[in-house]
Amino acid sequence: MTDTTKAVPGLEALKHRRSQVWDELLAQSRFVRTVQQGEVTKALYALYLIETYHYTRHNARNQALVGVRCDDDRHYQKFCFNHAEEEVGHEQMALHDVASMGLQPGFPIPRALPATEVLIAYLYWVSYQGNPLQRLGYSFWAESCYDYIRPLLGKVQKTLGLTPAQMTFFVAHSDIDAEHSQAVDEMIAKKCKTPEDWEDVAQVMETSLRLTWRMMDEVSDAYAQLVDGRSERAAFLKAL
Amino acid sequence: MTDTTKAVPGLEALKHRRSQVWDELLAQSRFVRTVQQGEVTKALYALYLIETYHYTRHNARNQALVGVRCDDDRHYQKFCFNHAEEEVGHEQMALHDVASMGLQPGFPIPRALPATEVLIAYLYWVSYQGNPLQRLGYSFWAESCYDYIRPLLGKVQKTLGLTPAQMTFFVAHSDIDAEHSQAVDEMIAKKCKTPEDWEDVAQVMETSLRLTWRMMDEVSDAYAQLVDGRSERAAFLKAL
Amino acid sequence: MTDTTKAVPGLEALKHRRSQVWDELLAQSRFVRTVQQGEVTKALYALYLIETYHYTRHNARNQALVGVRCDDDRHYQKFCFNHAEEEVGHEQMALHDVASMGLQPGFPIPRALPATEVLIAYLYWVSYQGNPLQRLGYSFWAESCYDYIRPLLGKVQKTLGLTPAQMTFFVAHSDIDAEHSQAVDEMIAKKCKTPEDWEDVAQVMETSLRLTWRMMDEVSDAYAQLVDGRSERAAFLKAL
Amino acid sequence: MTDTTKAVPGLEALKHRRSQVWDELLAQSRFVRTVQQGEVTKALYALYLIETYHYTRHNARNQALVGVRCDDDRHYQKFCFNHAEEEVGHEQMALHDVASMGLQPGFPIPRALPATEVLIAYLYWVSYQGNPLQRLGYSFWAESCYDYIRPLLGKVQKTLGLTPAQMTFFVAHSDIDAEHSQAVDEMIAKKCKTPEDWEDVAQVMETSLRLTWRMMDEVSDAYAQLVDGRSERAAFLKAL
Repeated sequence: MTDTTKAVPGLEALKHRRSQVWDELLAQSRFVRTVQQGEVTKALYALYLIETYHYTRHNARNQALVGVRCDDDRHYQKFCFNHAEEEVGHEQMALHDVASMGLQPGFPIPRALPATEVLIAYLYWVSYQGNPLQRLGYSFWAESCYDYIRPLLGKVQKTLGLTPAQMTFFVAHSDIDAEHSQAVDEMIAKKCKTPEDWEDVAQVMETSLRLTWRMMDEVSDAYAQLVDGRSERAAFLKAL
Repeated sequence: MTDTTKAVPGLEALKHRRSQVWDELLAQSRFVRTVQQGEVTKALYALYLIETYHYTRHNARNQALVGVRCDDDRHYQKFCFNHAEEEVGHEQMALHDVASMGLQPGFPIPRALPATEVLIAYLYWVSYQGNPLQRLGYSFWAESCYDYIRPLLGKVQKTLGLTPAQMTFFVAHSDIDAEHSQAVDEMIAKKCKTPEDWEDVAQVMETSLRLTWRMMDEVSDAYAQLVDGRSERAAFLKAL
Repeated sequence: MTDTTKAVPGLEALKHRRSQVWDELLAQSRFVRTVQQGEVTKALYALYLIETYHYTRHNARNQALVGVRCDDDRHYQKFCFNHAEEEVGHEQMALHDVASMGLQPGFPIPRALPATEVLIAYLYWVSYQGNPLQRLGYSFWAESCYDYIRPLLGKVQKTLGLTPAQMTFFVAHSDIDAEHSQAVDEMIAKKCKTPEDWEDVAQVMETSLRLTWRMMDEVSDAYAQLVDGRSERAAFLKAL
Repeated sequence: MTDTTKAVPGLEALKHRRSQVWDELLAQSRFVRTVQQGEVTKALYALYLIETYHYTRHNARNQALVGVRCDDDRHYQKFCFNHAEEEVGHEQMALHDVASMGLQPGFPIPRALPATEVLIAYLYWVSYQGNPLQRLGYSFWAESCYDYIRPLLGKVQKTLGLTPAQMTFFVAHSDIDAEHSQAVDEMIAKKCKTPEDWEDVAQVMETSLRLTWRMMDEVSDAYAQLVDGRSERAAFLKAL
């Protein structure tokens, strides 16, 4: 954090609200609790990574859509296309990490869960209409999430005995995203001019984080159904 | 040209067809003839730059749209977003060059001519539907156009007594685009696999170049109407 | 229900699943419970109608989008455009009903709640991509919802002492929609050919109904905040 | 024409401009001249109908797109969806008429000519951006074209010895469109409020008619290439 952005009260308020939602999520998510209690399994983690794959596949594309329609702000437009370029292909790391736990690459990828589809739908919605700045609200929590989920990742790694080479999605992102996060903070601080801008960014931040929370818990439900034999979805993961 | 691309017969055929269309254009365009005969005026050149501004404004955006929908080819997707980022704001150079001939920045920009709108419409069309590779056909001639129009630019510069600092759009682009042109050639050579791919690229190359030709000649018509007093469009340019 | 559609096992299964989700919703929704217990107020009902206004505004548009992209099935395409035309302006009835409880037409409409935005986002998503048939899953429950919510509407009417002329949104729709519902059932029965078609329709049916449930409960939360003085959103409704 | 619309000076000016462009087209189009001189062949007429098929296929869809984005004018929105519904499938009549001259239904449809693609691209462009009213400019000439092309159709029918049942596209449309044309005139008269509205409609009217003219002449060129053996495109039509 530079002095420039630290001084911005809107940004501080936004960070405060981000922490509040994370605190709720970390305290209440069933998926998080399973991880915290050291009860995560390879199949559960794989189910989570598969949903991560699904929504991550769209991130470069919906990021670019913002650039396509903000032709009156070249600085922000460049940021959108640049960021889109950097996001291309990141979903492959999630698939790699699944495979690294004992599957052949090219395993059949189950369809996204409904909660994941809803998250994807929402991220496109905030990208193709409304305040072009609002998608920064998603980046605002997503690019800085390692500050909040690092302990969870450590717990997953320890519980499952994974090497860093088996956690490329999160290892790579925690490095890339530190830099992105700084750029996102600066962009928000620079571009948000009106109370409406700040509220639009805040609303997308909160809503997209809550939808991610639902996705996590739907992963837990899908896992329970898999274990109970109530569902054949991704049954091949039971072999992990 | 590297050895890699030189060896590709499809690319050579495409270059041949490009040269044929350029030869037609250079021989038959009324706008080109006026330039060749040393009869270009500042107002005519400004009218041309204004149309250039209009369609160039959309280039980053329609380029990015291709990336948004080609999610099965990460290499090409990255190229699209990268190229989109580089194109952002180039239209401002065209406006700068108009102003540099004696107008205040912020002068009223006339609405695009119909032929320019048609070109813009077509570039979006080839970007948002059909073969995602086809937009490379536009880049194929646009990024290498300096090989064909350099003599014309020299003639404009000489006739109007312009300095290079008054021709930033073309000077900057001829440098940037040499590199782009090489990248476009390589991408076409690498990605076009079927006769349909090659034909799709060729068709967009030819059609978009012919639409640009029409735009040039509509600039000539607009200029004639301005000089004859038949139109008040961009009348402020008569002061140049 | 005609004999034609009655005979279709896929349709019967879909109806069964619809009933299950409605049963869950009617048993668990906090908003529904408030209505059932005769505790609905004009302000709460108005808050609900305002969200109804928000998502209904988009129904004609996302319905038409399906038609725009299903150019290989003229029968379904005609249905989409026809249905879109019939949906135009229905949101105005929701506003009318709010006003009829004691507000001037033209009252300031508060921004949609996040859950409503998510529902809207999802309805566009299922309309502009994926299986074009899938949006029928939304119509499947939405056009027949009166079978499930009639008792609730009766309760609202009684608790608040409303005349039918103050409940135009629901009265008008229950008539229009009986016919629509039949047409939707027939379309689903006719067009769904593969297990994937049936599953796509079922998934959208269930997900969009669950998102509507969340919207209802977010209305309850917004009402609680209004009553508690924790929020100034739509504070003018307290005067009702 | 009702008294209502007759009284509108903007509409009269628009009709005048329409007549001027038609006069140019009828006097200068190479395709028109061939028809007028009684030199049309079945293959040439078939080539024209095939291009008609190509752009007509998109008319319902781009018409509906206008409705999707004009959510602030319910009257016009309804018109768009209604008109879209009526346009669905009309392109099949063009194919029917080709087949009726001696081909099996299901004959291979050649790819659209570049000029046709440009027309299609432009009609989408005016539909998805800019003044939502502007697409009325296309309907303004297209729905009333029979006033101008009736003699040509008569000439085609006589030269080729066709029955009305072999000219369904034009026979059906001349009936349907008389009604549409009246509705379009009224809509333009009612909705165009500012000089910009009128100019937007006029510009689209003129540009889309000129692009259609180019399409006609490109059909003539394609026919010449077919006859000369310079092209194998649609070579099966030589058997007609």
